[in-house]
Amino acid sequence: MDNENKFEKLEPIRVKALDDILGIPFKILDDGFVRVIDYLGSDQSIVQAARVSYGKGTKQVSQDRGLIRYLLRHRHTTPFEMCEIKLHIRIPMDAWRQWIRHRTANVNEYSTRYSLAIESAQTTYPDQWRMQSTDNKQGSSGFFDAKIGNEMTADEKYLHEKTREIYNKRVAQGVAREQARKDLPLSTYTEAYWKIDLHNLLHFLELRMEKNAQLEIREYANTIGNEIVKRWAPIAWEAFEEYALNSKEFSGFELELLSLLANSKLDEAKQRAIEYGWLKYKNDELTFNMERWEFENKMNDLKIRIPW
Amino acid sequence: MDNENKFEKLEPIRVKALDDILGIPFKILDDGFVRVIDYLGSDQSIVQAARVSYGKGTKQVSQDRGLIRYLLRHRHTTPFEMCEIKLHIRIPMDAWRQWIRHRTANVNEYSTRYSLAIESAQTTYPDQWRMQSTDNKQGSSGFFDAKIGNEMTADEKYLHEKTREIYNKRVAQGVAREQARKDLPLSTYTEAYWKIDLHNLLHFLELRMEKNAQLEIREYANTIGNEIVKRWAPIAWEAFEEYALNSKEFSGFELELLSLLANSKLDEAKQRAIEYGWLKYKNDELTFNMERWEFENKMNDLKIRIPW
Amino acid sequence: MDNENKFEKLEPIRVKALDDILGIPFKILDDGFVRVIDYLGSDQSIVQAARVSYGKGTKQVSQDRGLIRYLLRHRHTTPFEMCEIKLHIRIPMDAWRQWIRHRTANVNEYSTRYSLAIESAQTTYPDQWRMQSTDNKQGSSGFFDAKIGNEMTADEKYLHEKTREIYNKRVAQGVAREQARKDLPLSTYTEAYWKIDLHNLLHFLELRMEKNAQLEIREYANTIGNEIVKRWAPIAWEAFEEYALNSKEFSGFELELLSLLANSKLDEAKQRAIEYGWLKYKNDELTFNMERWEFENKMNDLKIRIPW
Amino acid sequence: MDNENKFEKLEPIRVKALDDILGIPFKILDDGFVRVIDYLGSDQSIVQAARVSYGKGTKQVSQDRGLIRYLLRHRHTTPFEMCEIKLHIRIPMDAWRQWIRHRTANVNEYSTRYSLAIESAQTTYPDQWRMQSTDNKQGSSGFFDAKIGNEMTADEKYLHEKTREIYNKRVAQGVAREQARKDLPLSTYTEAYWKIDLHNLLHFLELRMEKNAQLEIREYANTIGNEIVKRWAPIAWEAFEEYALNSKEFSGFELELLSLLANSKLDEAKQRAIEYGWLKYKNDELTFNMERWEFENKMNDLKIRIPW
Repeated sequence: MDNENKFEKLEPIRVKALDDILGIPFKILDDGFVRVIDYLGSDQSIVQAARVSYGKGTKQVSQDRGLIRYLLRHRHTTPFEMCEIKLHIRIPMDAWRQWIRHRTANVNEYSTRYSLAIESAQTTYPDQWRMQSTDNKQGSSGFFDAKIGNEMTADEKYLHEKTREIYNKRVAQGVAREQARKDLPLSTYTEAYWKIDLHNLLHFLELRMEKNAQLEIREYANTIGNEIVKRWAPIAWEAFEEYALNSKEFSGFELELLSLLANSKLDEAKQRAIEYGWLKYKNDELTFNMERWEFENKMNDLKIRIPW
Repeated sequence: MDNENKFEKLEPIRVKALDDILGIPFKILDDGFVRVIDYLGSDQSIVQAARVSYGKGTKQVSQDRGLIRYLLRHRHTTPFEMCEIKLHIRIPMDAWRQWIRHRTANVNEYSTRYSLAIESAQTTYPDQWRMQSTDNKQGSSGFFDAKIGNEMTADEKYLHEKTREIYNKRVAQGVAREQARKDLPLSTYTEAYWKIDLHNLLHFLELRMEKNAQLEIREYANTIGNEIVKRWAPIAWEAFEEYALNSKEFSGFELELLSLLANSKLDEAKQRAIEYGWLKYKNDELTFNMERWEFENKMNDLKIRIPW
Repeated sequence: MDNENKFEKLEPIRVKALDDILGIPFKILDDGFVRVIDYLGSDQSIVQAARVSYGKGTKQVSQDRGLIRYLLRHRHTTPFEMCEIKLHIRIPMDAWRQWIRHRTANVNEYSTRYSLAIESAQTTYPDQWRMQSTDNKQGSSGFFDAKIGNEMTADEKYLHEKTREIYNKRVAQGVAREQARKDLPLSTYTEAYWKIDLHNLLHFLELRMEKNAQLEIREYANTIGNEIVKRWAPIAWEAFEEYALNSKEFSGFELELLSLLANSKLDEAKQRAIEYGWLKYKNDELTFNMERWEFENKMNDLKIRIPW
Repeated sequence: MDNENKFEKLEPIRVKALDDILGIPFKILDDGFVRVIDYLGSDQSIVQAARVSYGKGTKQVSQDRGLIRYLLRHRHTTPFEMCEIKLHIRIPMDAWRQWIRHRTANVNEYSTRYSLAIESAQTTYPDQWRMQSTDNKQGSSGFFDAKIGNEMTADEKYLHEKTREIYNKRVAQGVAREQARKDLPLSTYTEAYWKIDLHNLLHFLELRMEKNAQLEIREYANTIGNEIVKRWAPIAWEAFEEYALNSKEFSGFELELLSLLANSKLDEAKQRAIEYGWLKYKNDELTFNMERWEFENKMNDLKIRIPW
């Protein structure tokens, strides 16, 4: 660190690719959006903050990339907190209920106590009704055919109109807005300003771009990741894809088995799996074991054969 | 602080008055509740933590009371963070949406992705429909008479049955729970475990016991304050009532006027109010000024006459 | 809120008065500084965020001022969180130890594990040695005279040289930097990037500009307040001075007494003070009572006579 | 979830193995310690909180173990936040400076403004002086021999005595404690109450038990992990060892290479490494590449041969 305290006047760090889309909404779902209001910092700020810690001056871009990847890979998260972004979001309350669980962010939400509720609820088109997943208790998989879908969409339309009609009636009669809103559907749109630092945003994206996240919030997350963060901090984004989105973790025991399998010690691997309690039989059939099943999936992805 | 590190084995700090009601629900609204699951610490823990800072051993109870009051009055908040409580809450999603905005807390909420939604929505009895407040854009004041109330409650009943019917139909047809729930009313009950430290709980209560907080959440806050915190940490609670709930703040300019008025310098006070921009006339009538109006209310409460 | 979602492209919000000093250090203590690296938002952003909640478009500047003052006065803190600032600080570790206790901020600090410690420790000039306060156990009051000061400064100089000499010797011999630093004085300077939102910054300033805060950190706080925030968000700053720095709070009982005193009911006031336990005598002398003493100070400031 | 709201009175959840050591200090370094003051929750509370989300009642212990492991493996962190522990720590300020960077915790630290500084600084015995690591810029490796160590320890002793002498002199002359302390060594002991939830504690331990963490703080972390958490929540602790301490993460590209190597496609693996930029030569020698080097280490641990 420069002990002489000779500092020059600074210019704000701006990222042209993001400035170009400032304020312009990306449409999501039938009537939602995300738009960037403003931001602070860039890839360069991550490097700048890390180098305060290391007491070093600026370096070449090629070294910047290596440093950012190093920081992200080793969970040195504080330099990523030095970037901040403010988004304006329009989203169904149901998805917003999940969103707001991410606590390390700043929020100003549209108030239906103060103002009339937004006249819009998320519409599901006939081909968008999803079936309950059978292997994931909290997921969906596949869509209903148009015939059933049409009927469901008609029911939905009826509900939206009826709930809105009763809401309007209450308001017209003078019921307090804070009470009139009580039976609006969870699908009603809300809006919010949401401000968050890049580290916490990436954490949000890791959880919400994940394939088990609910489709609605996943669409917002995908847009924020691929359309916004990628423009804003392209090097951090690339590192995030490599080290978070596309990475896999292996537990201590999984590493032990992996080593045996990669070295063709199949019997030994099986023996260890038995000892670990992964291979139990009922009427000659292997019973389901979730930890084993997750390991098998990883081995399938790696094209490594499992010896049981 | 004792530099000799002679420590005795400790017993956990328990508060009999709170242990006596552990797990027992306090009923709120038509179908909600709050119950204490467990807690950590007591009035005594606040004192214990403060004395780590001061490097002192334990004292008499009378001094404890003075210390707790001192800490609360002077916003020495960290010793209050040394107490923690875990509540189980059943609450309409609409009120929960406000609740969850308090970020410094731990939460596990009932998942309507994983399980079927709770079959209960907040019912409004005919005498409970509230009118929009005219002087507070986000409040309510007064109730509708029974005749109008009856009709509104009938409408509400219809909506609750219809939304539940369509929800059940979707689930029966195999729609994913995460999607089936989308049009449930905001009044649907949810449940959660909510864990928070005493400092942040008092901050929550200060905002949510306030007369402008929405009635629904206020009922939860009043119960938590008067039934739970009062049993748990009676000295802190008494101090909180004195220094937070019943206190008033005066701005720099308000203090200046207050001094003039208390010393019968009415003309001077009026003159200063004019200079400050509080007294503007339109067609010989004083125009509304919110800062002045708030000051007038404080003076009325103090029975001090205003010279304009 | 505009339900039509017609949004125009935005320009980043910049504040000329702050852009003019970006990167330029304000000197503090003998060798410290604060400089602004970058920021996000302005007074206008506070208003913008509040109006998302209220579902309203932009208004005139005069209304903006009223709104910001209203928000600050009523502790509607979230719109202030929509502004963010990043500072570069050089500060003695001793003061930094207090600073870092403010948790809601982002930090990257110079690492003395990775790099050699900064070759500078806070020097106290002969006229800067402060005496222990007698009425505030954690404060100071008054300065030593030059003769004693000279000797103390000489001792300090010796210590700084000796600790640095031994640090350098350890490093030269190959001791790990993380261990070599262990006996550096707390007065050693460190540097950090510190990023915080405006709400939390104002909270920091309220505590650290306070007259009982330690002089060293107070000088940083004063500079941040008067030189930086005042340029950045002048309306919010003015409101903060009025409603936080210059305000006073009165407890429930203090308000009761204040009303009696302002209405010349001196006997009744005294009677209530006795009942409340504020007036106790020992050998005909009033014993010290801190709550009473604080009230007396407030009354003195208001020039209201106390009847005991 | 039980919609009938039939709840029985609860007893607090206590863990005998932890109650047995409540208040008893574990000695660390020459004069530090950690002791448990109190706690809230247990393994059982994690399960209880998770089952609120899932709307399920209690199950057998064998299922509890599977659930806790599932939650930890899939980063469902909120149920772990339902456990809270309060520790009393005595630690050199230098290590505390690192500790306090973990923001999601509650802290009351001994105040050297209010009280005299603790008369103890961390002593380094002659065989404890560590050499600067050559391959880790912020680490240490190996120890100095006794002869050099003796000299260093003598220097340290001199410094500790001299700084304490000058501190005592300042205090005796009446210098304010807040200023007198300014040149105390970073090795001076401090004490604090530290309260944190189990999720954040495990995160702290993951970072501070790591082999690159500084030895001093690592000793505290090891004690908290192996002596305290293991007693408190043995199932969570076992899962944490398996899925956090002993696990390894592989990036997207590492997984690609791993699959090729495990399937003996060595040429293809080498070709991909070249394309990815991992194999660059200077004067016929492979240049250092940190990402490649980290991959090589992982392959060595798995006993998988690298084809370059």
